[in-house]
Amino acid sequence: MPKVHFYPDNRIVEVEDGENLLRAAMLAGVHVNASCGGSSTCGKCRVIIEQGKAEAKPTAKLSADDIAQGYVLACTATVNEDIEVRIPIESQMGDSKAALDRELETVSYAGFLSAKDLSELFGEFTINPATKRLYVELTPPNLEDNVSDLERLRRGLNRQHGVADFNVDISVLRKIAGTLREADFKVTATILSLGGGECDRLVKLDAGDCSARHYGLAVDIGTTSVYVELVDLATGETLAKASEYNTQVSCGEDIISRIVYSLKKDGLQKLQQLVVETINKLIDRVVERAAVELDDIVYMVAAGNTTMTHIFLGISPKYIREEPYIPTATFTPTVEAKELGLRMPEGARVYTVPSKASYVGGDITAGLLASGVFKSDKLTLYIDVGTNGEMALGNADWLLSCSCSAGPAFEGGSIKNGMRATKGAIEQVRINPATLEPMILTIGQTKPKGICGSGLIDAVAELFLTGVINEKGRFNLELDNPRIREVDGQGEYVLAWAADTSIKRDIVLTEADLDNLIRTKGAIYAGITTLLDSMQIPVEAIEEILIAGGFGRYIEVDQSITIGLLPEVEGEKVKYVGNGSLLGARLVLLSREAKDVVIDIAQKMTYLDLSTNPTFMDRYVSALFLPHTDRDTFPSVMRRMKAILSA
Amino acid sequence: MPKVHFYPDNRIVEVEDGENLLRAAMLAGVHVNASCGGSSTCGKCRVIIEQGKAEAKPTAKLSADDIAQGYVLACTATVNEDIEVRIPIESQMGDSKAALDRELETVSYAGFLSAKDLSELFGEFTINPATKRLYVELTPPNLEDNVSDLERLRRGLNRQHGVADFNVDISVLRKIAGTLREADFKVTATILSLGGGECDRLVKLDAGDCSARHYGLAVDIGTTSVYVELVDLATGETLAKASEYNTQVSCGEDIISRIVYSLKKDGLQKLQQLVVETINKLIDRVVERAAVELDDIVYMVAAGNTTMTHIFLGISPKYIREEPYIPTATFTPTVEAKELGLRMPEGARVYTVPSKASYVGGDITAGLLASGVFKSDKLTLYIDVGTNGEMALGNADWLLSCSCSAGPAFEGGSIKNGMRATKGAIEQVRINPATLEPMILTIGQTKPKGICGSGLIDAVAELFLTGVINEKGRFNLELDNPRIREVDGQGEYVLAWAADTSIKRDIVLTEADLDNLIRTKGAIYAGITTLLDSMQIPVEAIEEILIAGGFGRYIEVDQSITIGLLPEVEGEKVKYVGNGSLLGARLVLLSREAKDVVIDIAQKMTYLDLSTNPTFMDRYVSALFLPHTDRDTFPSVMRRMKAILSA
Repeated sequence: MPKVHFYPDNRIVEVEDGENLLRAAMLAGVHVNASCGGSSTCGKCRVIIEQGKAEAKPTAKLSADDIAQGYVLACTATVNEDIEVRIPIESQMGDSKAALDRELETVSYAGFLSAKDLSELFGEFTINPATKRLYVELTPPNLEDNVSDLERLRRGLNRQHGVADFNVDISVLRKIAGTLREADFKVTATILSLGGGECDRLVKLDAGDCSARHYGLAVDIGTTSVYVELVDLATGETLAKASEYNTQVSCGEDIISRIVYSLKKDGLQKLQQLVVETINKLIDRVVERAAVELDDIVYMVAAGNTTMTHIFLGISPKYIREEPYIPTATFTPTVEAKELGLRMPEGARVYTVPSKASYVGGDITAGLLASGVFKSDKLTLYIDVGTNGEMALGNADWLLSCSCSAGPAFEGGSIKNGMRATKGAIEQVRINPATLEPMILTIGQTKPKGICGSGLIDAVAELFLTGVINEKGRFNLELDNPRIREVDGQGEYVLAWAADTSIKRDIVLTEADLDNLIRTKGAIYAGITTLLDSMQIPVEAIEEILIAGGFGRYIEVDQSITIGLLPEVEGEKVKYVGNGSLLGARLVLLSREAKDVVIDIAQKMTYLDLSTNPTFMDRYVSALFLPHTDRDTFPSVMRRMKAILSA
Repeated sequence: MPKVHFYPDNRIVEVEDGENLLRAAMLAGVHVNASCGGSSTCGKCRVIIEQGKAEAKPTAKLSADDIAQGYVLACTATVNEDIEVRIPIESQMGDSKAALDRELETVSYAGFLSAKDLSELFGEFTINPATKRLYVELTPPNLEDNVSDLERLRRGLNRQHGVADFNVDISVLRKIAGTLREADFKVTATILSLGGGECDRLVKLDAGDCSARHYGLAVDIGTTSVYVELVDLATGETLAKASEYNTQVSCGEDIISRIVYSLKKDGLQKLQQLVVETINKLIDRVVERAAVELDDIVYMVAAGNTTMTHIFLGISPKYIREEPYIPTATFTPTVEAKELGLRMPEGARVYTVPSKASYVGGDITAGLLASGVFKSDKLTLYIDVGTNGEMALGNADWLLSCSCSAGPAFEGGSIKNGMRATKGAIEQVRINPATLEPMILTIGQTKPKGICGSGLIDAVAELFLTGVINEKGRFNLELDNPRIREVDGQGEYVLAWAADTSIKRDIVLTEADLDNLIRTKGAIYAGITTLLDSMQIPVEAIEEILIAGGFGRYIEVDQSITIGLLPEVEGEKVKYVGNGSLLGARLVLLSREAKDVVIDIAQKMTYLDLSTNPTFMDRYVSALFLPHTDRDTFPSVMRRMKAILSA
C-alpha cells in the first residue's frame, strides 16, 4: 500500500492503491479546503506533489506554471505510489493545527465486506436457481408417433435433460402447439423447481434456443428506496443495478403512515400499484442498461420489511399496526409476476424472502443470510439502518431480533437536503475546527446535490466535535461564521454554497434535520442496548457489528460512535455490508440452498417486541442527545471533543 | 313382477312394478293407438281393466259411465298387480293382428345399468374428494402468542385435523386476516389435495363452520349437449341435475366445424365463452334447484371429448383437425375456475378428465371408469353415441379405442323435430303395420315436443319394418295414408299431429332426417366392425355391449339392430349406461382413487386412428343402408321384416 506524507503537518498515512488524494488527507487528519465534492470545479484543493507522482485529471483551475511547480487538485488526484504532498497555505485557509491534533486512529472506516468475504460466502452455495431454461429438439409428430404436444415435450425434456414429471401452467398449455410448430419443434422450456413439496412446473416455452439467456431480478423493497439488480442466472453475474425512491413515499414516510394509508378506500391497492410502478421503472432501466430482453427474465426474489412485502403482495398490513401486531403471513407463496402487475413475461414468478414477525422482515433475514451471520462463530450484531431500524444479535447457534421505528433520515428522508447514496451525494465531511470550513467528498466526485447517510453521520459528528452544535443538536449562533446562520428562527450550517452545487442552491443542515437524525440514531441505539441487555451481554462482548443500509460507502466508525449511533466498540469490529437485503435476495435468487437457509433463519430466530418492552422507551429518551444523556458510556467521544476544542 | 294379460290378443307380459300400461302393451307387442305421448290428452288409448286394478289419473276424456265400466287411459295407468286388460276395437283402430305376429322376445330394452351395479362399482371407491372443508377454532393472538395468521391457521389445522404442511393461494392470503377476525377465529378452511406430486393447498377460507356444506359439480361437455350434476361431496349424493344444448352449436354442429370456427379471429375465445355460459346457466339452475349457496361449490370435474375440453380450457384445437391429428395435451392441469370464467367462488378448482388422443376424449375414459370396463373380465364393447361416436373394446387387461364422426342425430341435432332426451321427447314409437298409425310415449308423458335418440331408433326401425321406407331411407309414397306425405319434393311421416303436440305443429320424420340418421348409425357400425376386425374378434365373442349417450331411457336392442346401428347380438348382452361421461366425472369428483384409475385408463388404452385406417371408409359406405348392404350379416332383421310384412 502506498504511503502519503503530508507537509507541513508531517503526517504519514497508508492508503489503498488508487485512493483519492483528498480522501487520503481525510484519513491522515489533514485539512484541505474542498467545496465542490471532488468535481474539480472550485479549485480550492490545490496541493503540491513534492516527491513521487500522483495522477490527476487536467483542469483549467491550474495554469501551466502551477503544473510545472507540481500543483494538482487533490480531489482529482489518485495515489499510486509513495508520495510527499505539501498543503500550501491558501489550501489550508486558516490554522490547520486543530485537525492535526486528532488521533490518527479515529479515522477508521467501517470495513466493507470485501469481495473475498462475499465470494467465500457465495462459494457455499453453488449457482442453482429455482428456474432452468432447457433447450430441446423434438422429432415432429407423425401418424405413428402421435402423442400430444405436451407428452412430446415431456419425453424430450426427460431424454435430453433428465427432467422427471412436471406440471404446466394453463397459459403455457395454450401456446405450446403454436410455439412448437413455429419453431420447427426446437424450443426452450423454462422449468420452475420450487421444492417444498411442490411439483416442478413448466412456466414458459419459447421458440429456438434461448437457454443461454436466463435472467432474474433481485429486489430490495425498502420503505424509502427500492433497489433492483439484474442477475445472469447462468453465471451469477450482476448485469445491471438501479435504485429509486419508493413512490409510496408520497403516501407517508414511515411504515406506520403507510399502514394508515392502506386502510383508506383503495389505499392498499394504490400503495401496491405505486411500489410495482417503481419496480417496473427500475426493471426497464436495468433491462436497457444490460441490453437484455425483458422476455428472458423469468424469476424475481424480493426482500423487504414485513409491511412492504405485505403491500407488495396485495395483503393488507392492517393488523401489523394493531396490538398484538400480527402479520398475515411470514412465509408467503411464490406468485405469478402478472398477478402483481409486474413488468415481467407471462409465467415469470416472484418469491418473497420470509419475514420473522411484523417488524422484522425479509430484509433482515436476507441480510443475515448474505452477511453470513447465520453460520458465524462470532457474536455478531447486525443492524439494518433503513426507515425501520431492524437488527439481530447472535451467531450460528442463536439469533435474537428486534426493530425500532428509526425513520428515513439515513436514506435522505426528512432531511432538507437529504438524498439517497447516489451520484452527487455528499458522503464524507470534515470541518476545520478553526475556520469551520468544510471539506466534502461526493459519490462519483461530482458537484454536490445533497447529503446521504454516511455524509450526515460525518457532518453531525464534525459539527458536534467542533462545537458548532450542542448535545441537543442546537446551533451555537454566537459563532461568527458565514456558514452558520439563522433562517426563519432556525439555525443551520451551509455545507456547500449554491455556486459549488449542482442544484444551484446552498446545501444546508438545519436544526430540524438534526432533530430527525437524533431521533433516528436514538431509536437504533436504544434498540441495540435493549437487545444486548435482554441477553445480559455487555457491549465489549460483541465480536462483530455489521451495518447494512443505503449509506454511502464510507461510514466512519468513530463518527458513528460520536453521534451515539453505535456504542463504543473497536473500529475493526465494524463492517459495512451495504444493502444486505438486496445481497440476500440475490443469493436466494441464485441458489435454492440459500432459500432453504433463509427459511431456516426465519424459522429459528427469536423476536423481541420492543413496543411492549418496558425499558425501550426510557432508553430511547436517554439517547436523544449527542452522543447520549449518559456521557460516561462514550468516554472516547468525550476525549475527542476535549482534544479538538482545547486545540 | 306383476303380469298383464292383454285381450283380445291373448298376450301375457311381465313388467316392473309400477310400469306404465301403454309401455306394457308395447312390451307385449300389442298395439294401442296413442298420439299424445302419454299426456292423456288425445284420449285414444282407452282400455278396459277386466280383472285386478290399475291406478290411473282422473281424466275428462272418460265419463263416469266409462269409469264404471272399467275404462282407463292406458297412457296414465300403472301396473301394480296382475291384471287383465281388454283393448276395445276403437283403440285398435284397424287390424292389430300384424303387431301380434311379432315375436315377444324382439322387444328387449337395453338393460339399464342398475342402481345395484353402480353402487357395487362406486363401492370400490370410498368418498374421498380432492377437497376437504375443515372447521377450526383458533385461539386469538396475543403478545405472547403472536405468530402470523397463516401460521396460526396451520397450527390449528394440524392439531385439530392432522393436516400437514400446505401451500396457499395468494387470493386466500389476502383475505385471511379479515376473515379470522370477523369470524372470531372460528373458520372453515378448504384444502385441495391434488396428489401427483403437488403440495396440499389452502384455496378458500370462510367464516364460521361451513364444513357440512361441501359441494362439487360433475360436468359432461358434449359437442351438442352439456350436463351438470351438483354433488354433495360429503355424502356422495346428487342434489340436482340440469342439461342444456351446448350454445356452441350456433357455431357449427360437429367437432370439425367447431375447430374451423375456432380458427377465426377471436373464434376460440368465443367458443370458450359460449360453453362456459352454458355451464354457468346450468350451475345457476342446479344451485337453485338444490337450494345451496354458490359459494359452497369448491370443485368441478369436467369430462368431454378432446376438442371440447381443449376449447373449455381455452386451448386451440387447431392441430386436432390436421394430420397427424395432435392434441396439445391429453392430461391437463387442474385450473382455477375463475381462470375459465366459471361462475364458482374464488379458489374453486376445475379438473378435466384425461383424454387418450385427439378423437378419444375424457368422455370415453370417464365412461370406461364409470361402467367398470377397466376392471371387467368380460370382453366388452363400450360405445358412446355422442356427436362424435367414440368407442372402446376390451376388458381389465387391454383396451382399444377409436372414434368416428357420427354427427348429432341421436342428440336431436340435424333432425327436423329432433331434441335431447328431456321432457316431451318421443322416446318410444310403435307403428301398426296395417293402419300405419303410431303409438308413442314421451319422456315425462306429456304432449310431444320432438323426438330423441331412442325414439328415432324406434321410429326408423318401425318405418322400415312396416315398409314405409326402403333400405335407402326413401319413403314409399304410393302408400295411401294421411301420415305419409310429400312436402317440397321430400317424403315424410307424421309422428304426431299438431293438435296432439305441445308445439302446435306436426311432428314429422323427413327423408333428410333419415339420411342424417343413416350416416350416423353407419359411422358407428363401421367403427364397431373395424375395431373388432383389427383384433380379429368375431361379433359373437363380445360378452357385453355398453351404450352410453344422451338417449331416452328405452333403447330397444332389436330396433337398434334393425336399423344396423348395432351388430346382431343377444339382447341381454346390451346395457344402457346413460351418460357415461357424466357418471365418470362424478366418480372422479368424489374419489381421488377414481381419478388415479381414470389416469391409468388414459395411459394404458391403445388408440386406433380410423381416419388413416384403410378399411374404415369402405365399411362406412357399406353401412349406409338399412340395416346394411350385406343383408346376410343381419339375419334376424330379415326374419322380422318377413314376419311383419307377410302378416
